[in-house]
Amino acid sequence: MELPEEVRRIAEDIKAMRIRGAGRIARAAAQTLMLAAEAYKGDSLEDFRAYMEEVARLLISTRPTAVSLPNAVNYVMRALREGRFQSPEDARKAVVEAARDFIEYSLQAVRRIGEIGSRLIETGDRIITHCNSNAVESILVTAWRSGKRFHVYATETRPRFQGYITARNLAREGIPVTLVPDSAVLSVMRSRRITRVIVGADTIAANGAVINKIGTSQIALAAHLHRIPFIVATETYKFSPYTVVGQPVEIEERPPEEVLENPPEGVVIRNPAFDATPPEYVDMIVTERGIIPPKSVALVLWELFRRRPAEAGGVKVEEDATA
Amino acid sequence: MELPEEVRRIAEDIKAMRIRGAGRIARAAAQTLMLAAEAYKGDSLEDFRAYMEEVARLLISTRPTAVSLPNAVNYVMRALREGRFQSPEDARKAVVEAARDFIEYSLQAVRRIGEIGSRLIETGDRIITHCNSNAVESILVTAWRSGKRFHVYATETRPRFQGYITARNLAREGIPVTLVPDSAVLSVMRSRRITRVIVGADTIAANGAVINKIGTSQIALAAHLHRIPFIVATETYKFSPYTVVGQPVEIEERPPEEVLENPPEGVVIRNPAFDATPPEYVDMIVTERGIIPPKSVALVLWELFRRRPAEAGGVKVEEDATA
Amino acid sequence: MELPEEVRRIAEDIKAMRIRGAGRIARAAAQTLMLAAEAYKGDSLEDFRAYMEEVARLLISTRPTAVSLPNAVNYVMRALREGRFQSPEDARKAVVEAARDFIEYSLQAVRRIGEIGSRLIETGDRIITHCNSNAVESILVTAWRSGKRFHVYATETRPRFQGYITARNLAREGIPVTLVPDSAVLSVMRSRRITRVIVGADTIAANGAVINKIGTSQIALAAHLHRIPFIVATETYKFSPYTVVGQPVEIEERPPEEVLENPPEGVVIRNPAFDATPPEYVDMIVTERGIIPPKSVALVLWELFRRRPAEAGGVKVEEDATA
Amino acid sequence: MELPEEVRRIAEDIKAMRIRGAGRIARAAAQTLMLAAEAYKGDSLEDFRAYMEEVARLLISTRPTAVSLPNAVNYVMRALREGRFQSPEDARKAVVEAARDFIEYSLQAVRRIGEIGSRLIETGDRIITHCNSNAVESILVTAWRSGKRFHVYATETRPRFQGYITARNLAREGIPVTLVPDSAVLSVMRSRRITRVIVGADTIAANGAVINKIGTSQIALAAHLHRIPFIVATETYKFSPYTVVGQPVEIEERPPEEVLENPPEGVVIRNPAFDATPPEYVDMIVTERGIIPPKSVALVLWELFRRRPAEAGGVKVEEDATA
Amino acid sequence: MELPEEVRRIAEDIKAMRIRGAGRIARAAAQTLMLAAEAYKGDSLEDFRAYMEEVARLLISTRPTAVSLPNAVNYVMRALREGRFQSPEDARKAVVEAARDFIEYSLQAVRRIGEIGSRLIETGDRIITHCNSNAVESILVTAWRSGKRFHVYATETRPRFQGYITARNLAREGIPVTLVPDSAVLSVMRSRRITRVIVGADTIAANGAVINKIGTSQIALAAHLHRIPFIVATETYKFSPYTVVGQPVEIEERPPEEVLENPPEGVVIRNPAFDATPPEYVDMIVTERGIIPPKSVALVLWELFRRRPAEAGGVKVEEDATA
Amino acid sequence: MELPEEVRRIAEDIKAMRIRGAGRIARAAAQTLMLAAEAYKGDSLEDFRAYMEEVARLLISTRPTAVSLPNAVNYVMRALREGRFQSPEDARKAVVEAARDFIEYSLQAVRRIGEIGSRLIETGDRIITHCNSNAVESILVTAWRSGKRFHVYATETRPRFQGYITARNLAREGIPVTLVPDSAVLSVMRSRRITRVIVGADTIAANGAVINKIGTSQIALAAHLHRIPFIVATETYKFSPYTVVGQPVEIEERPPEEVLENPPEGVVIRNPAFDATPPEYVDMIVTERGIIPPKSVALVLWELFRRRPAEAGGVKVEEDATA
Repeated sequence: MELPEEVRRIAEDIKAMRIRGAGRIARAAAQTLMLAAEAYKGDSLEDFRAYMEEVARLLISTRPTAVSLPNAVNYVMRALREGRFQSPEDARKAVVEAARDFIEYSLQAVRRIGEIGSRLIETGDRIITHCNSNAVESILVTAWRSGKRFHVYATETRPRFQGYITARNLAREGIPVTLVPDSAVLSVMRSRRITRVIVGADTIAANGAVINKIGTSQIALAAHLHRIPFIVATETYKFSPYTVVGQPVEIEERPPEEVLENPPEGVVIRNPAFDATPPEYVDMIVTERGIIPPKSVALVLWELFRRRPAEAGGVKVEEDATA
Repeated sequence: MELPEEVRRIAEDIKAMRIRGAGRIARAAAQTLMLAAEAYKGDSLEDFRAYMEEVARLLISTRPTAVSLPNAVNYVMRALREGRFQSPEDARKAVVEAARDFIEYSLQAVRRIGEIGSRLIETGDRIITHCNSNAVESILVTAWRSGKRFHVYATETRPRFQGYITARNLAREGIPVTLVPDSAVLSVMRSRRITRVIVGADTIAANGAVINKIGTSQIALAAHLHRIPFIVATETYKFSPYTVVGQPVEIEERPPEEVLENPPEGVVIRNPAFDATPPEYVDMIVTERGIIPPKSVALVLWELFRRRPAEAGGVKVEEDATA
Repeated sequence: MELPEEVRRIAEDIKAMRIRGAGRIARAAAQTLMLAAEAYKGDSLEDFRAYMEEVARLLISTRPTAVSLPNAVNYVMRALREGRFQSPEDARKAVVEAARDFIEYSLQAVRRIGEIGSRLIETGDRIITHCNSNAVESILVTAWRSGKRFHVYATETRPRFQGYITARNLAREGIPVTLVPDSAVLSVMRSRRITRVIVGADTIAANGAVINKIGTSQIALAAHLHRIPFIVATETYKFSPYTVVGQPVEIEERPPEEVLENPPEGVVIRNPAFDATPPEYVDMIVTERGIIPPKSVALVLWELFRRRPAEAGGVKVEEDATA
Repeated sequence: MELPEEVRRIAEDIKAMRIRGAGRIARAAAQTLMLAAEAYKGDSLEDFRAYMEEVARLLISTRPTAVSLPNAVNYVMRALREGRFQSPEDARKAVVEAARDFIEYSLQAVRRIGEIGSRLIETGDRIITHCNSNAVESILVTAWRSGKRFHVYATETRPRFQGYITARNLAREGIPVTLVPDSAVLSVMRSRRITRVIVGADTIAANGAVINKIGTSQIALAAHLHRIPFIVATETYKFSPYTVVGQPVEIEERPPEEVLENPPEGVVIRNPAFDATPPEYVDMIVTERGIIPPKSVALVLWELFRRRPAEAGGVKVEEDATA
Repeated sequence: MELPEEVRRIAEDIKAMRIRGAGRIARAAAQTLMLAAEAYKGDSLEDFRAYMEEVARLLISTRPTAVSLPNAVNYVMRALREGRFQSPEDARKAVVEAARDFIEYSLQAVRRIGEIGSRLIETGDRIITHCNSNAVESILVTAWRSGKRFHVYATETRPRFQGYITARNLAREGIPVTLVPDSAVLSVMRSRRITRVIVGADTIAANGAVINKIGTSQIALAAHLHRIPFIVATETYKFSPYTVVGQPVEIEERPPEEVLENPPEGVVIRNPAFDATPPEYVDMIVTERGIIPPKSVALVLWELFRRRPAEAGGVKVEEDATA
Repeated sequence: MELPEEVRRIAEDIKAMRIRGAGRIARAAAQTLMLAAEAYKGDSLEDFRAYMEEVARLLISTRPTAVSLPNAVNYVMRALREGRFQSPEDARKAVVEAARDFIEYSLQAVRRIGEIGSRLIETGDRIITHCNSNAVESILVTAWRSGKRFHVYATETRPRFQGYITARNLAREGIPVTLVPDSAVLSVMRSRRITRVIVGADTIAANGAVINKIGTSQIALAAHLHRIPFIVATETYKFSPYTVVGQPVEIEERPPEEVLENPPEGVVIRNPAFDATPPEYVDMIVTERGIIPPKSVALVLWELFRRRPAEAGGVKVEEDATA
């Protein structure tokens, strides 16, 4: 059976970064699997399985670096892969339920990160953030609503200026926010005596490295050298089990036109979407399961993906990772 | 006498950054003093002196951070201030000659920096540069023409994108050049195994700190941490004698519109034009007088401005600096 | 029922630092709960529970930073809170037994730390210690009695000079000990070529930070920079489960009179009792359960307080910490 | 001729630290030489020379680490040693004049340091200082009187509590000042977000090392690690020419009773008066001749003591230093 | 019963380093226990146990630092110690089977490390290795056979030149390999822009320290300072459970003749076989169980030796380690 | 005229490293120029000049990295180049005299370095040295003869084992000396608590970098990280004026056979003779003119080679260096 138009459209939206942010992508993927299941018209269980696997493959192929995507897809697909069903109808129900579970868990996680992370904020703080992150916004808004008063410095985040979204969202809450060019981060860090940096994450590798929006690593480096706490806020379904067994995280290269439409002749443009921040520069990772030091990520992965897969959100890891 | 239209126009061009780069500004200032002298119509020596001092004040007021500006103005004006003249005509000639001397010296200096600095480049180098600098271009072009083969990574340099100028100029010479967003510097430094960073300077402070285009300090920090030589190319007339006696270098704040025309409501924008790179992060300062380690700048200033003012380009330093 | 005089007195002694040291405080708290239980005169189980909870609250309120206090109190109170009793008498017995267990465990822990830690000492060592710690004394005395020969440098530990106690106790064992002002630590570290630093702890946070007597962090910083092993000796009941979910450790501010009775007019005095040493500066934490690297504290807490509470000394952690 | 009582008394006062601070000691020495010359009763030029040399030796012997003392003594004595006189009277006059010159120069130097250093202070600063220094007070008071507003944190400075003097003097000027134990420096540095540290100096070695009151080096280390500017304020007559040729600076060990009158049996006390801060931790040395980076001290010494001894305050350096 | 000649010979070969490398030693030990069991001629179970314990003691005594040796011996001996047997014959079978298991596990581990580690290699890498390690060769050869192309720089590894073996083995596979003196490591690291360092290990301590061939720690230090990933490849049976409770790893001192046969009179020679690399300098430890960050070794040991001894290869740890 | 056999032989000895050490090479070069002058048979002044220039060129070509060689040659040749002579005989005398001057100066310099440097040694020191250096031996022997007692650890210095010479020479003086493999430096540094490192130099670059025997830079790195003073002892005629204007110091690559005669097939050998130690790792440079911090080398060169060439040993610097 052909894939429904809607499914293709969402996959396209993820690819084109119209749907952005690892959490939103993960939920969109779960949502899409649900849509696909509901749109299925056939009456063969085998055919349904094959059809769903194709949807899963399509989704996973859209963004190579966002581990939340395969983690979400595998969570939902596990219900199908491991379940024993009488009819396509039963299987469809199981998929829909698993997708709803994942979405619910994901939303709860953002709230829970907001609660835990907001305790780390103090009145008087001057905080740098980069790009736009659901989890970071949840922390800042929760802290602000609890009466803490602070100032946020948001970077522009060239080339796509996601910092404007962050600035607008925080300003709507009444939080004082200053927007600065990416090149001014260290200057602001020093002249404004920044007290904290908080960013989101796309993927967390087994060694504690944080893969996030391009520019994150140089902010982390500067914060580290100035003894300013560098905090990463992220759901645990962005922890990558693949890296435990040495598989590198591939960094997506985005189209040059995002940077400059008509470059001077002979000039090449590079536009990597993410970079990797080494664990030495990260002070804490705030997750929905509590605060985890980056050097302990490998053991958390061991816990999550080997011994208690169900609790870990059921993300399936290929045999390799658990040998 | 009223200041000539032309003089006002150039002053305005410097202020609006239509004339950019500390060297070009210095030469423009000398040129303007020459124009002003030539345009003078009166016949009183005293009046000529007052008129020229007004021009000097106007020029110095246009850009607070570029020390090359007062250094150039003081060089030329010293001929007037210290000379004994029979007539306005004599004085005018002295000013014109001093201005020509300065311009010639400045152009020679860029060539000489090109020669010395090009010896530091090796075939196989992968070089990051930031913003646009005459002295840096001189080094790179000299090295390329001498047959060395290397690759340059130029930053965009938000908010005014001077990196496009650098990229275009180098590409015209046939030098392979890649343009990257400012946020990608550290990522490129690591993934492309950058071997050198070369930037220009706006002002060199007595403690060896380098005041240059916003973003310079975070590139320097990253280079330092990765043991990549960080080289500054600059004429010695950008060394600031004022800083010897504790006067801080004021950092110019540029209009927010350069960053974003219509920011979201409640969002403030900061747009500092420069930042200060501490001397620990600078490996060498290539000048027309040889290579100077940043920690020795104070003693060079002592040499240049106290004992041998004539050789130092005759920059006059107020009494304070030499007490 | 009113709280017994004895109970109030001990609470007061803890508050006034007449009872000092996190281990001694913990044991005093267990002892006090035992005393309170024994002093109970009523015959209502419900009333006994309420009475004991009041004692618990009183004890916990005396010192805000020492996590050993709530950990000890919660250990003992858990026997009451979770037990099902027939009579106040039964409940009383359970409390008394739990208190005895805790005290026994605590004393054993100090001995065990002495055994493990003494293996890290070598003949010829020159060791700095700060303030006064049961666990540190246990290590040094155990090592000395096993025949190892070394020299201890004890800091005065202004403002309350607990270093004098350490110096006296070690000297009584025959250990050569030199007393130095707090300001001489780095000087002694270099001129005496110190080989090890060993200190106790008040609280261990989830990120491995060590909260201990004011001055600890600057000794740790100096040791770290000079590659001198910095060892913390502490029982695991000082590990704070609250910090896993972002609750900061509050640092007690002590009365200014401890520093100076009559300060010059216009002069304010600050007297923080503790400071936080970041985990990067700590090489090992010697506990009764073995040597734990500071970066792994979070996972130990996870182990101790979530999955095997009984083994962890039964310290109750509020729901939050284990969500 | 016997040395006058007054001379012996002042020498004793310097030794007992009743006269404290390298500047005050230097001026006291010059003053004493003047007194001795004026008290001289004999009429033999040769005898006067011998008598004065004895006074000089006595003065130099009182404090082994303060290089300002021999520098001051040699400055004054050079007038005698190199002059050609007709009578003891002539020689006496020359000594008196040289002593007055030195004292005047020294006082001017403190004022000049105040002017230069005050430019480094900004409104909003939170400044740590240690011990008590004329030059530092001059900077802080000059800045305050010029309208800048800041907060000073003064350390107690065990064992002799010179920090109380600093606190009292600054409080009298209306400057807000907080007194903290020496052990709280790093804690205050972090919790109060200190922006600058300013201390005086006893001696500056050729490699830029700063010999100052015990405790200075650990504050400098902490400031360095937290990227907080560490500023030393000192007259150039505290630069030690002897260190150029490898002579180490001897650190004075003060009596143990200053720390504790009756130590516990078997406990030894160490009480070094000074420590050495390595040049890497010092950002600037503010002198009456301008701001000097610590790594350039050797060349300044070369300038001061070899080529232009007269300008350098005429301090005589033994042949060795200039070979 | 006397120990068989073959057993004594292998023990001697291990001692004389004719059998080298912690993995080979471990397998040789297991093999020897098998041989000894097979050679046993008696018919008393008790006597067999005593005889085998003597063999075990002999083997363990040959090399004090290689923890793989007692780990292997204890693995095999546990089958004997804990088993209940009817006859010496039964016991012999159990020993032989356990020895075969261990050898099989060990060989599988090397293959598995090769697979995981090879994923960390990229085409274009320039890799330094030191000494000779089975596990490292497995990684490099696996990567090469998978089509990745890189260049290896092998150190000579004075005094016994094991680097020649590495160089020869890799060259046979067609891998380009350059041999350099040990003193040239940093020079090569910089001039050749090394991208990775990979070494084996003799023992891994609880704090993550890596005990390996002398020279390893200075290569690690240099790599760390130049941000070059430093990777250790090792089987988990080299993790030392003894270090958890503070027992130091003893470093073997080898005969001086290995360095120089006839030293000049009065010259002493030191020849330590191993050194300890602190965990801060190690980026990853590649094991057959996945990649482990060095700071997490203590918790892995906790896992391996306490809760799941069977899976950990059944290494018996004395009571102490698990109290 | 053909060059005398003796001249060719010495040139060959320098090339083959039979004459080793920058000082000995410099003196041998001066000696050879003297010999060549004395051997000259012709009677044309012009011919003599040409002949001597050929000798000069030959000498300079033997070792590309040792700047002492051209410095010595230029010192002597300047007498010829700048002098005005009546006859070849006059010119010959001038050359012979200049050569004697240089040799005398050079020998005095070593003694003077011994005096100054020996003051930096303290009884109780444990000192690492590398390779073999006249200046270092002069320091150690002077200190030992002055009654100071210390222990020296000499590295083997592969591939040519010059450390054996150092060990033998020091042992003859009765100095306790231990020889260690190059790979054991960091291990010894830590286990023996080394207090100082002293090495010689081949060339000092303008930025303070020390070019010395391969292996020096990794010892310096380790010393720096462990806060152990790293001292370089060298005559100022090893300061390279060429580096002021950007000319890189070329590192000599020695024959592979020095490392291994018959390498395994496919194995390449690299054998760089020297490496460059960056100035950050060098604490002091002890010269015959006093102790110079490495960051001030550029200004010393400026002094020596521009303004006072005669005092600088008359080394001629090509026009370029002084433009």
